[in-house]
Amino acid sequence: MFRKILFPTDFSEGAMRAIRRLERENSMAVEECILLHVIDEGYLEDLLNGYSYMYESEEREMQDIISKAKENAMKKLKERGERCRGMVKAKRMRSVVRIGIPYEEIVKFAEEEKVSLILLPSHGKFGYSEELLGSTTIRVLRKTKKPVLVIKTHKEE
Amino acid sequence: MFRKILFPTDFSEGAMRAIRRLERENSMAVEECILLHVIDEGYLEDLLNGYSYMYESEEREMQDIISKAKENAMKKLKERGERCRGMVKAKRMRSVVRIGIPYEEIVKFAEEEKVSLILLPSHGKFGYSEELLGSTTIRVLRKTKKPVLVIKTHKEE
Repeated sequence: MFRKILFPTDFSEGAMRAIRRLERENSMAVEECILLHVIDEGYLEDLLNGYSYMYESEEREMQDIISKAKENAMKKLKERGERCRGMVKAKRMRSVVRIGIPYEEIVKFAEEEKVSLILLPSHGKFGYSEELLGSTTIRVLRKTKKPVLVIKTHKEE
Repeated sequence: MFRKILFPTDFSEGAMRAIRRLERENSMAVEECILLHVIDEGYLEDLLNGYSYMYESEEREMQDIISKAKENAMKKLKERGERCRGMVKAKRMRSVVRIGIPYEEIVKFAEEEKVSLILLPSHGKFGYSEELLGSTTIRVLRKTKKPVLVIKTHKEE
């Protein structure tokens, strides 16, 4: 029984595949599972590209982008939550969206929430062809004091 | 319930501390737990230092060193096993000693035994002052296709 699991996701398919495999091999009972998506603040700035004429100011445009991004992320997280529910037997499930630098937010959130485990896919959105371990994953591993369960996201052979 | 856990250990105290903490925070039921110690083949060669006059040949000396190293490692593993038994609720427990390059043997053994999880301390024998992640740990993480649970071995604050 894991007390409180944090499952950060960038919505890549690999992570879902990994969880499925883990659950098939082991049967994990979990008290609480928190799905976290961190909107990369660098990515937000990329969206700020010249539509400010539609807004009173760039700050106003940014607020709009942020609220839309949060809304979309929350919707996707809920979908993931439903799919996870069939795989991880968690008594409670929560979805949380944050904005910042992904690995920093993950480490901070894990401390704040006193999670007992962080579940991390070995690779996220940017694939696994070049790198042997995803950059967010390796950074979280280095920084956090929490136990981290790394699941390989390679396609099954 | 984890089906089959592989717990490689280099006999450092950090690993035991980490398992204790993990067990206190979560309560893991395990079907089978295999304790593995890999005798570093490089280390064996270091022991070959001039006592060959006591033996017929260097090979004979090496055989003797290997059998003593294996015997000692097995004795230590059994002690660890007893201590682990109180922490990880495993139905079956096995101890295995191998010789080779630690990360390679761990990855190979995990495949052969079809383990469902590898439990790795973030740092082994050579401490955690300089490196943010131990070299064997990072190598296993990169090479294996198995899920890896990395446990921080820092002293509790």
